[in-house]
Amino acid sequence: MDTRELADRTRRFVTEVVFPVEREIVADSRPMDDALRLELQKAAKEAGVFGPLSPVQYGGLGLDTRAQAVVLEAAGTSLIGPLALNCWAPDDGNIHLLAHAANATQAERYLAPLASGEVRSAIAMTEPAPGAGSDPGMLRTTAEEVAGGWIINGAKHFTTGADGAAFVICVARTEDGPTMFLVDKDNPGFRVIRRMPTLDHTSAPGGHCEVTFTDCFVPDEAVLGEVGQGMEYAQVRLAPSRLTFCMNWLGLAVRAQELTARHISGRESFGARIADHGMAQAQLADNEIDIEASRGLILRAATAIDEEGAASSPARHLASVAKTFVSEAVWRVLDRAVQLHGALGVTEDHLVARFLVEARAFRIYEGPSEVLRWSIARRVLRTHR
Amino acid sequence: MDTRELADRTRRFVTEVVFPVEREIVADSRPMDDALRLELQKAAKEAGVFGPLSPVQYGGLGLDTRAQAVVLEAAGTSLIGPLALNCWAPDDGNIHLLAHAANATQAERYLAPLASGEVRSAIAMTEPAPGAGSDPGMLRTTAEEVAGGWIINGAKHFTTGADGAAFVICVARTEDGPTMFLVDKDNPGFRVIRRMPTLDHTSAPGGHCEVTFTDCFVPDEAVLGEVGQGMEYAQVRLAPSRLTFCMNWLGLAVRAQELTARHISGRESFGARIADHGMAQAQLADNEIDIEASRGLILRAATAIDEEGAASSPARHLASVAKTFVSEAVWRVLDRAVQLHGALGVTEDHLVARFLVEARAFRIYEGPSEVLRWSIARRVLRTHR
Amino acid sequence: MDTRELADRTRRFVTEVVFPVEREIVADSRPMDDALRLELQKAAKEAGVFGPLSPVQYGGLGLDTRAQAVVLEAAGTSLIGPLALNCWAPDDGNIHLLAHAANATQAERYLAPLASGEVRSAIAMTEPAPGAGSDPGMLRTTAEEVAGGWIINGAKHFTTGADGAAFVICVARTEDGPTMFLVDKDNPGFRVIRRMPTLDHTSAPGGHCEVTFTDCFVPDEAVLGEVGQGMEYAQVRLAPSRLTFCMNWLGLAVRAQELTARHISGRESFGARIADHGMAQAQLADNEIDIEASRGLILRAATAIDEEGAASSPARHLASVAKTFVSEAVWRVLDRAVQLHGALGVTEDHLVARFLVEARAFRIYEGPSEVLRWSIARRVLRTHR
Amino acid sequence: MDTRELADRTRRFVTEVVFPVEREIVADSRPMDDALRLELQKAAKEAGVFGPLSPVQYGGLGLDTRAQAVVLEAAGTSLIGPLALNCWAPDDGNIHLLAHAANATQAERYLAPLASGEVRSAIAMTEPAPGAGSDPGMLRTTAEEVAGGWIINGAKHFTTGADGAAFVICVARTEDGPTMFLVDKDNPGFRVIRRMPTLDHTSAPGGHCEVTFTDCFVPDEAVLGEVGQGMEYAQVRLAPSRLTFCMNWLGLAVRAQELTARHISGRESFGARIADHGMAQAQLADNEIDIEASRGLILRAATAIDEEGAASSPARHLASVAKTFVSEAVWRVLDRAVQLHGALGVTEDHLVARFLVEARAFRIYEGPSEVLRWSIARRVLRTHR
Repeated sequence: MDTRELADRTRRFVTEVVFPVEREIVADSRPMDDALRLELQKAAKEAGVFGPLSPVQYGGLGLDTRAQAVVLEAAGTSLIGPLALNCWAPDDGNIHLLAHAANATQAERYLAPLASGEVRSAIAMTEPAPGAGSDPGMLRTTAEEVAGGWIINGAKHFTTGADGAAFVICVARTEDGPTMFLVDKDNPGFRVIRRMPTLDHTSAPGGHCEVTFTDCFVPDEAVLGEVGQGMEYAQVRLAPSRLTFCMNWLGLAVRAQELTARHISGRESFGARIADHGMAQAQLADNEIDIEASRGLILRAATAIDEEGAASSPARHLASVAKTFVSEAVWRVLDRAVQLHGALGVTEDHLVARFLVEARAFRIYEGPSEVLRWSIARRVLRTHR
Repeated sequence: MDTRELADRTRRFVTEVVFPVEREIVADSRPMDDALRLELQKAAKEAGVFGPLSPVQYGGLGLDTRAQAVVLEAAGTSLIGPLALNCWAPDDGNIHLLAHAANATQAERYLAPLASGEVRSAIAMTEPAPGAGSDPGMLRTTAEEVAGGWIINGAKHFTTGADGAAFVICVARTEDGPTMFLVDKDNPGFRVIRRMPTLDHTSAPGGHCEVTFTDCFVPDEAVLGEVGQGMEYAQVRLAPSRLTFCMNWLGLAVRAQELTARHISGRESFGARIADHGMAQAQLADNEIDIEASRGLILRAATAIDEEGAASSPARHLASVAKTFVSEAVWRVLDRAVQLHGALGVTEDHLVARFLVEARAFRIYEGPSEVLRWSIARRVLRTHR
Repeated sequence: MDTRELADRTRRFVTEVVFPVEREIVADSRPMDDALRLELQKAAKEAGVFGPLSPVQYGGLGLDTRAQAVVLEAAGTSLIGPLALNCWAPDDGNIHLLAHAANATQAERYLAPLASGEVRSAIAMTEPAPGAGSDPGMLRTTAEEVAGGWIINGAKHFTTGADGAAFVICVARTEDGPTMFLVDKDNPGFRVIRRMPTLDHTSAPGGHCEVTFTDCFVPDEAVLGEVGQGMEYAQVRLAPSRLTFCMNWLGLAVRAQELTARHISGRESFGARIADHGMAQAQLADNEIDIEASRGLILRAATAIDEEGAASSPARHLASVAKTFVSEAVWRVLDRAVQLHGALGVTEDHLVARFLVEARAFRIYEGPSEVLRWSIARRVLRTHR
Repeated sequence: MDTRELADRTRRFVTEVVFPVEREIVADSRPMDDALRLELQKAAKEAGVFGPLSPVQYGGLGLDTRAQAVVLEAAGTSLIGPLALNCWAPDDGNIHLLAHAANATQAERYLAPLASGEVRSAIAMTEPAPGAGSDPGMLRTTAEEVAGGWIINGAKHFTTGADGAAFVICVARTEDGPTMFLVDKDNPGFRVIRRMPTLDHTSAPGGHCEVTFTDCFVPDEAVLGEVGQGMEYAQVRLAPSRLTFCMNWLGLAVRAQELTARHISGRESFGARIADHGMAQAQLADNEIDIEASRGLILRAATAIDEEGAASSPARHLASVAKTFVSEAVWRVLDRAVQLHGALGVTEDHLVARFLVEARAFRIYEGPSEVLRWSIARRVLRTHR
């Protein structure tokens, strides 16, 4: 099937199957739970749109990055569309990472059920101060080698998806450098303290959690890839993951623009349709410009990934640029959508209110704009020295 | 007591008494309830800072507008500070309106208990489409004159404070033009349908409600001021009310700036305090500029009100300009505060997350930025024809 | 030769041959004259980079729009690079228009020498108020049919390139609608009144002129294409012309970014290289984001033109979006470049000062941002009705 | 005379006497020359509006800072209004500095003729890299003590007003720290190399110059104030000088707004007056907001100077905030004014084009926005530690 057709089918699925569920859970102010997720994923499989990011051998569609761009935008038109398709954080990145670094045994045990949606996963990188936040160099969680395995000790927060995840990928400092470990949820040394009260609660079934690893023993087979390669793997995970974030969230901006155009077409004030007021049109046009520019940046970064590899310098540069711009553009679009809805825009009767609140974290997670700008500037300076 | 001293005392009261309560209710995600409000108001009275906007004869401090500016900014450093001082919407505007338009009997019955904090009130202006939203000319609620009184029929929404209010001021269309009526909460023709699920739930004890007036009989004594003067009274209410909104919300921006400066002074990343990174400093400086510019505009509008009257053309112009700028500036400040808190900024463990969400409506309530810009532009064009 | 290679060759040519000339004429504050233009064009021909937009049969490179995007960006790194390559307004658009609408005789007489750079041309559309400005519907210049030809009467301004042009394409109102006429420079009814004192004087060899047509007789053979099709031809001219404008000006932004990165790498203040100050890095990163987003939009619009035709709805929409965004992005980039040069940035010793002044018109010519936003919004509203 | 009356008189003088001269010199693209300046100053004296910043004993009006704010805004409505009133850089700052630091002999010789407009002056601070630019700590010009005086050696640029100035105040490094010297124009060791080709050529009669001091001997009496106090005096000069800059330039924004409101009231496009298009109104309103916010900040900084002294911490903080905001706001206002003039806005037939170009340096001179933001942020951080 060609990409455009798959994207259209995805959009149709999301519109017909996911939108009604979304309205319900937003109205009830409750997050996605796993029962709902599994039900939607079943429907997505039947519709032939499940797993756009997952390898074909694990039941996914195995799309290249450019195809992902259009399909994930369609998926993202609902806050919970990407969950229905299994292309949402942190599982999207974890699938990618496992496909890259897991050995055959690990792949069977962790990747297969994750790719099929049978289980969820989590990624435990970020730590409370003075540990690793935006700066991964500040990593404090440790893994000490012992007979037959490792003992992990440390505290993490913003462990996305941890509540209810079947396993957690934990980054810890070893003598040979940062290393990734696969930790099962029922490991007695692992504990989910609480879901943090983050603004993005609708779209995150497992929350963003505080977790601890306390004398947490894992066997040697729990090492993901090679010891000491944790930071490299984090990069492997990050470049495409930043971009899928962009694709998904751009979909939400597109949806907000549709809702807004329809809303202001049907309402009057001061003797004219709101849609005929110049100031409303200016905002609609600015939204369109932000959306189209976002598409352009995503497409260019996707092309660089497909043609030069996700680890290539152009791909990483363009992914940083795209993440910075798109996260800010989506925010502007949603904010204008709220404004154009008037007072209704700040009630959760209209989805745009929830969208705006939910999206705030996008400018921070996976690299805050400031850190990305810093890295973009350094690359510019290196190039034009 | 001089203004500066009163403002300092207010700030001290808010810091010592109100902040702890605020942290608690934000942590519990619950709105202010009336028991809490009354307790805080009692403390405010003891501290001598209660009622900055209320007339002295009703136990208030009777400050002029310029003095209000500094005192309300201090009050506004907590989301619930203005409630503790009884200078928060909609009661602030209703007190002002009643002081202007109520007769002696009405004043005793409605204004006195409202000014003392004994009861809360509501204002019912906005209507669902196709009624009066931003454009008051589209008013559809009617009041028909009958023997001994009036029969009101219509639906309102965004009736601020209605849940639990002792009375509602309702604007309805009569044969002689829009008219304001005082409707008691136990009037059988009046009904609160529901609190709307608005983003600003912490700071609004009575919510923003959908209400109906169904064959709602009120006696002639329920007419506030004169029949047919409803729009004039709405303006009387609006000019200072827009400005007190600005003062209160500016306080929240000031608080967010303090929290942020302290937060980034104590954290490191990439080898330096966040406070030493140029991009963080730029945001801190932009916040400061937004705060100082807001102060300047509020002061100029307050001076115009004090010297030329709230109904004067300069006062109304400057109040519109101030409302537009300050509402957008506060939003920018809070947004940067969130960003500078990093991922913590999007959890409600840190107040800035709640502040941001709560503040979104400020750019819409009491005149959306677009409507205000339109009226500002027309005044400019009239002046320079 | 592949596109990337041609773009590199173009950039090399501009850097080695054009930059020195540019520095000289900016230092002397003089515009390009035709002798200089012809000399540079000769060099461009020798370098094999002349005529990227012109049809192959007229000695051009005949590139498709996507290839133009990369080549013209390279050309545009100098204010006078596009002139050297003969891909600058108004000749670029006129070549395109003539290739579309001219008959064989007209092509030989007008298109051939224009494409070869032998002569320059002008386009006379815009009129002084109350004539056709942004709104072509207000056209007032008339052409009356007489025996053997037409009599044109009217005044135009902003007739780009008129001073020294071999011919002017004039749009005039006829009984059958707006029509385009080819008017030779020595037609006695045609007069160039003056070059207008526009800010963009370096890059415009023929200026932006006030011209008059006074009982200006032209024979029937002077009608370009069909009578009454003037507005359609204006659209034919406009869609690619807007985009080539974007490509050329984007090149200038790229150049300014290079100059700036180099400048701040070599200077110190407050104990560090300017390039190491966070606020400078933020501006450099914002420039990069603006440049990359512009590239993305140009590429998408170019693809739509190549795949669906310049007259297709997606192509026109994306060209409008690109023109709006790129013209504003280039302005921001140049403005930041000036700022990062410090006081030197506002002297014409540094090119960025001239670039900024020269670029101001880009947000107005070929559709001001406001008119484009209006048309973008209407298309959005039509789509989501 | 009360302040409002003096401001009105000033505005009348500028409108009636200065505007015609301004139109002429902009049309001719020539800078103010001294003959013209003296003629206008004579007229200003006759109108009773000369010297708003100068001490009364030297024939000035001796206004306090708050009064200056309204009078200088009126003066600044023309690019050359402040020159006519003798309240323009660098003479305004030099008058202030001399009134503060000059001894009686120096005052008679330098201050008196400067305050009366008989002569112009210059200030030589900024140096080419690697000397003192934004960072005064990098000062390289030296003054060596010799018998009976000092020998100054060094190169300066951006020496404002040097061409034609009667004397230059030069900052040079001595053994006891930076020191200010009064150097007469005919000192054989002093030379004006050239006027730099800056964008702001209309409003600067003496240009911004490159100058050299080569074994330039000055007697002991040439030391301004005390040896080693040069940086303190620079601060004395800077605080009010930053603010008078703001006042003057704000006037230009006000004028641009008037010109624009009038322009768009008289023109039509797409079936309506431009003044009735919502996007035009939005820009007009944004201009008004920027203007009023600028007034508010200037007033607050002026009040701090008057009440707490120009050297006080609040005064310096508010002057930095005002300079940053106002310089950027004026730029935005002028840019929107150009845009609303359409293509005419980029011709010097309309003053807004010249205003925009002339104003670019305002965001850089007397402290670039970045340096000011840095100092604002540090003050915020000190306060909220």
